[in-house]
Amino acid sequence: MAFAGPELLDSFQMDHQGRQTRVQNILARHRLDGLLVNHLPNVRYLCGFTGTAGVLLVAENRSLFFTDGRYTSQAHDEVKASKVVIAQLPPLAAAAKWIAANHKGKQRWRLGIEGEHLSVAARSRLAGALPGGCQLRQAPALVERLRMVKDPQEMDCIRAAVGLGASLFDRALKIIRPGVKESEVAAEMEYAAHQAGAQEMSFSTIIAAGKRSALPHGRASAARIPSSGFVVCDFGVILTGYCSDMTRTVHVGRVSAAERRGYQAVLSAQQASIDRVRPGVSCGEVDRAGRKLLKKEGLARYFTHSTGHGVGLEIHETPRVAAGQTEVLQPGMVITIEPGIYLPGQWGVRIEDMVVVTTSGCEVLGSTSKELITL
Amino acid sequence: MAFAGPELLDSFQMDHQGRQTRVQNILARHRLDGLLVNHLPNVRYLCGFTGTAGVLLVAENRSLFFTDGRYTSQAHDEVKASKVVIAQLPPLAAAAKWIAANHKGKQRWRLGIEGEHLSVAARSRLAGALPGGCQLRQAPALVERLRMVKDPQEMDCIRAAVGLGASLFDRALKIIRPGVKESEVAAEMEYAAHQAGAQEMSFSTIIAAGKRSALPHGRASAARIPSSGFVVCDFGVILTGYCSDMTRTVHVGRVSAAERRGYQAVLSAQQASIDRVRPGVSCGEVDRAGRKLLKKEGLARYFTHSTGHGVGLEIHETPRVAAGQTEVLQPGMVITIEPGIYLPGQWGVRIEDMVVVTTSGCEVLGSTSKELITL
Repeated sequence: MAFAGPELLDSFQMDHQGRQTRVQNILARHRLDGLLVNHLPNVRYLCGFTGTAGVLLVAENRSLFFTDGRYTSQAHDEVKASKVVIAQLPPLAAAAKWIAANHKGKQRWRLGIEGEHLSVAARSRLAGALPGGCQLRQAPALVERLRMVKDPQEMDCIRAAVGLGASLFDRALKIIRPGVKESEVAAEMEYAAHQAGAQEMSFSTIIAAGKRSALPHGRASAARIPSSGFVVCDFGVILTGYCSDMTRTVHVGRVSAAERRGYQAVLSAQQASIDRVRPGVSCGEVDRAGRKLLKKEGLARYFTHSTGHGVGLEIHETPRVAAGQTEVLQPGMVITIEPGIYLPGQWGVRIEDMVVVTTSGCEVLGSTSKELITL
Repeated sequence: MAFAGPELLDSFQMDHQGRQTRVQNILARHRLDGLLVNHLPNVRYLCGFTGTAGVLLVAENRSLFFTDGRYTSQAHDEVKASKVVIAQLPPLAAAAKWIAANHKGKQRWRLGIEGEHLSVAARSRLAGALPGGCQLRQAPALVERLRMVKDPQEMDCIRAAVGLGASLFDRALKIIRPGVKESEVAAEMEYAAHQAGAQEMSFSTIIAAGKRSALPHGRASAARIPSSGFVVCDFGVILTGYCSDMTRTVHVGRVSAAERRGYQAVLSAQQASIDRVRPGVSCGEVDRAGRKLLKKEGLARYFTHSTGHGVGLEIHETPRVAAGQTEVLQPGMVITIEPGIYLPGQWGVRIEDMVVVTTSGCEVLGSTSKELITL
């Protein structure tokens, strides 16, 4: 398939220096002299490292990346805008040692940590290794906030991931039929994804058929697709580090009037939320628009989860698109819109697309037809 | 294939009550009145829940599992030996609320937290939601220590996972040849795994060919297998929640004398470490046995990682099998033995098996021949 893979799109094109400068520019505002970034997607965003062990220290006028010997060549190949330090110690301990060596005797040095990502035990070890003048402060989610708004290079990656992801639905349509195991459908889709160059799936493919479609988180199981009922397919790929996320619900056998009405209600709810997406609108309003429509149909109580979430280097990012969320949409944000209804023990429907907020509204990414497909 | 899948082996057979009782029995020794378990593999181990949002509160004479509305039916189906609480709040907040409601006014209640797994921010929120008399204490890794020693039901799952995992190597041998992309080999293996009933891979399959074999963490890339060189294949599956982990290194084209000597040295080092595995021996001694052999061959400086790690519900568990590790082996521990050498820019070899510690030594799980295969 003609998807741009890692050969064409890679992190070398990303503006790591610009991103780190933006962090450096807001340190003082948050009364920090440095930020210790240990959440790996944040590390990757800021310096390009894709391995599984490393921390980044961004200070006002310098940036250091600490990793261990397993990643010597990978770090030198990948890391941009930051000095690579290969340490004998675990990366966090190495960073603490460097700070201790470089800030000894200074009056005060305020080190921000990522409170949502650093464990209590790691914080204790870090505090124990730092010199007296160094204070640990729980920083707000600075990097996550930068990551909410995607830059053009990221949008290229996301569009490529969405394109590859969407193609898997065609594969699913060829396989889904009564008697086939959910896990077989998932296996075929994941195989097609890998063959097309996906690094991995964004999450374990969800194929939930018949009564299992009423489980919002129904991972593909060994259950066979029944002779009649909905099949919820929720899937995504990771390409060049960026995730796709898409859900389609199809039907095998005869569709009942209630099922058809439910499907149309979810589709209308999705469109109502999509229509609400534009700069300046809060995430809570987007959620409300779809929920309101389901309420009219008497189905709102079956919509038991939130409307969506940000997507990028992680499958679930800020902002949350949920009731009461005051975060305001900005151009460049990428979110899912995925209402669903789940009638316990009976059936469920979910329809999901990714959208990017534009200056005047939004663009649905790689959308396919969403009329009910019966197989 | 005839692997026992989730239909035959499932967590319903696990002794969740016994495991929780063991935790309850050691609470007092650690001066705790309760333990809040938020690490999901630990939650699964103790009560059987396999979802992605939930915390378990184990107190001296009661056990409660908190999750949210998405997991209502799954929690009721899966959770054993614990009362299920479906909450409107996030699970950790729900647990705090329950503690606040049930321990108000009491003099002191010491709640253990999993320091390696609870984030600094989550700890702050928890502390803020608890009543005055409740103290948070960082507990040692109590559940991980129980999990180190596998019970017979777990061994059944692990043996099934290892059997399925090992079968993928046969698939790889059919595909590996010069010109084929590393990612194609991985895709075929992962497809075979899913078809055979694996839930997912333990980790992204590593296929590292030619010069890339010198990268200890060389995930399958778009690079093509060269006309001559080693191909490191490191792969594993998850079956019924339990991981397998295995590495084989094969060769395409003509093998040089240095390559053959390197391969034999790694194989001998692996055997030396395996021979050292028995109850009462420290993990550090197991590591040393293999390293000593590579030293004799003048290759020890290319063995840049540790010898192995525990495997079970997680691909990397305690104990660590590394230099200086004083943890002593006990019957029922399952560890990998995986020495490797990596000559930068040239080639690398790694050979890995999982072994279970027996009363008198160890058993290599599902081992295939390890003589050098040339393709």
